[in-house]
Formats: sequence, C-alpha cells, structure tokens
Amino acid sequence: MSRKIAGPEIERVIQILGRLPGLGPRSARKAGLALIKRREELLVPLANALKAAAETIVTCASCGNLDTRSPCSICADNRRDPSFLVVVEDIADLWALERAGVVTGRYHVLGGHLSPLDGIGPDQLNIASLVGRIQPPVKEVLLALSATVEGQSTAHFVRERLAATGVEVSTLARGVPIGGELDYLDEGTLAAAIKSRKSL
Amino acid sequence: MSRKIAGPEIERVIQILGRLPGLGPRSARKAGLALIKRREELLVPLANALKAAAETIVTCASCGNLDTRSPCSICADNRRDPSFLVVVEDIADLWALERAGVVTGRYHVLGGHLSPLDGIGPDQLNIASLVGRIQPPVKEVLLALSATVEGQSTAHFVRERLAATGVEVSTLARGVPIGGELDYLDEGTLAAAIKSRKSL
Repeated sequence: MSRKIAGPEIERVIQILGRLPGLGPRSARKAGLALIKRREELLVPLANALKAAAETIVTCASCGNLDTRSPCSICADNRRDPSFLVVVEDIADLWALERAGVVTGRYHVLGGHLSPLDGIGPDQLNIASLVGRIQPPVKEVLLALSATVEGQSTAHFVRERLAATGVEVSTLARGVPIGGELDYLDEGTLAAAIKSRKSL
Repeated sequence: MSRKIAGPEIERVIQILGRLPGLGPRSARKAGLALIKRREELLVPLANALKAAAETIVTCASCGNLDTRSPCSICADNRRDPSFLVVVEDIADLWALERAGVVTGRYHVLGGHLSPLDGIGPDQLNIASLVGRIQPPVKEVLLALSATVEGQSTAHFVRERLAATGVEVSTLARGVPIGGELDYLDEGTLAAAIKSRKSL
C-alpha cells in the first residue's frame, strides 16, 4: 500500500528530494522530515539559499562553469595561464580539480561524455565551442576525462576534432593512485602503471 | 586544501544539504550540482515546496504529528478507534505504521527515546502529554517503540508512568527483529507485529 501519509506539502518536499542523485525514497523521507522538524535551522535557510542560487547562478558562456557571472571567476582570473585549457566532463570534475588546486590554466566543461545509447552525440556536448576556443595564446589542451570506456572514447573523439588546430593535446597520467595499495588495484591500472614506469 | 570553488550561493546550498541526515559532503555536492543544473525541473520546485511547507506545516498539539492543521488529520479522523493509542518515538515511525495501514487508533509521538548520555530524559519527551491523554474512551496504549535497548528502556519507563492510570498497555509482538528500527521494516513485519501485540 502506498497511502499518502503526510500532507501534500511534506510529500512534495520528499518527492523532489527523492529525485536528487544519491537519495532513495527512504533517505528522501529522512531528509525531508529533518528539514521540516528543524525549520529555522535547516528548512528556511535552504529555501532562501535555493532562491538566491536560482536568481544569481548563470552558466559561463566561455567554459560552461556555473557562477554568478559570465565569464565565470575562473575565466576572468588574469593570473590563470592563458595557454593551458583543461577539458572536463562535468562541473563536479572542475570542482574536484580546483579543490586539488593544481590547474594553472582555465577549463572547458563538455557537459558529459559521448553515449550513443543515451542519445548523447558530439552535438549534445560543448565540443564545437571548445574548438572555437583553440586560438592563440592557447597552446595545450589537457583532456581530463574519466578513465572509463565512455570517457576515453570521448577523449579520442575530441582529440580528432582538435587535430586540425595543431594544438598540443595531453591526457592525465595513468597509474597507481596516491595511497593506493597494489593488492586492491585492478589489472588495468597496474598494467598502465607498469607500462608508464619512470626511472627513479 | 579546501578552497571555496563554487560561488557563495552554490556553496551555501551544498553546505545546508550536507547537514541533512544521510548526505555526506560528496553526495551534498552532487545533489547541489543537480539542483543548480536542473533549475526549472528541481531547484525552483524544491524552493517553492520548502516555502509552502514552512508556511503551512504545524505540530499537532494533541499527538505531535506534523500536518497542515492541529489537531492533525489523523487525530481529527472520526473513523479512528478512540480507545486505542499507539505511542511511537518519531514521526518517521508514525509514517511507517501508516504506510503499513494497520493502526486503527491514533498516535502519540514521544519525540525520541530516553538517552541520558545525550541529555534526553523524561522531560525532553512528550510523556506528560501522553499521560494527560489517558482518559475515557482510551482503553489501550500500544508502545510501538524500537526494539533497541533505548527503545525498550523508554517503553519500560512509559509503562511505569501509565501504571497509575489503569490503562491497558501493550507492546509490539516479537516479530520485530532485535536491533531493528521501525522505519527500516517492511510492511508485512509491521502488520504481523501489530496483530500479535501482547499485554504488558
């Protein structure tokens, strides 16, 4: 039986929470109940934060990042190396690289990876706009895409599209992750780590 | 390094989401990003639903349930058996029992269980108001508390407090697995446990 227990206002909050990635029906109920029980502490602040985000966040017309302005604060940052572009699948990947604080250049967000079965072809990704950005002073494009079949076939496709521009195209190193124990790694990673071994 | 990557509007949404039960920092980022990317589909509806909930949801003065009115729709439902009260720890437990559709009576939400280490004693729970509700036509109080140490010591305490009223006190049948929490149980188990309730 799936009677509607709580009133429609609560059900609606729970239903929308349940559509977020990583929240199933049960965790959505738990989160929704916590919100409603802690109104001043959680519910009202979240409602206000969402409203502020809805009103202010825009997609950067240059790189596809989300920010309160376009060009975004990364694209507008003149201390960034203008010769170096890092291509990522998703904004979450951009955030991960920024947390690591290791990218000296700027980004380009593809918006996903090629996935013909899901109807995602080159035209659904921001590839044309990437090609359009390849002009001086851009010298190198790093394809920081996932080490999955989809990520790598996307990388292959993008590299082909960039070939005519003559820009240098690089990819992330493959190997043993820091803190990784050999025993737990898959054979593909170990093979890549051996193949790209370095003189010590 | 923990640089603030996204703008303060996005960070704020993610920060509040991360305080919900069941969402860690990573899943909060994922959920926040999904909200912002799917503005019309998720973010705006959630903001509106939260606003509606904040404006309309009240705590039932009688049983402690959350609803748009007080007394709540369960307390106000005259088809409910007026002689039968079901005591639960949390609203999530009330929802779980209502989903099972097996409670013919009304509820009383304690608001937690006794937990001296967390500073939760009898005065922090809705026990006095429960005792106040024990008058005709109430004939039976079912203590539908979790089969945990805390739940059962709470049940023991409540039973002592109800002793003077002469009301019949029952507990869920041992169909509830030891260590289990009501909110996790399937409806069949809940139904069996209600059906086999025992005099305490």
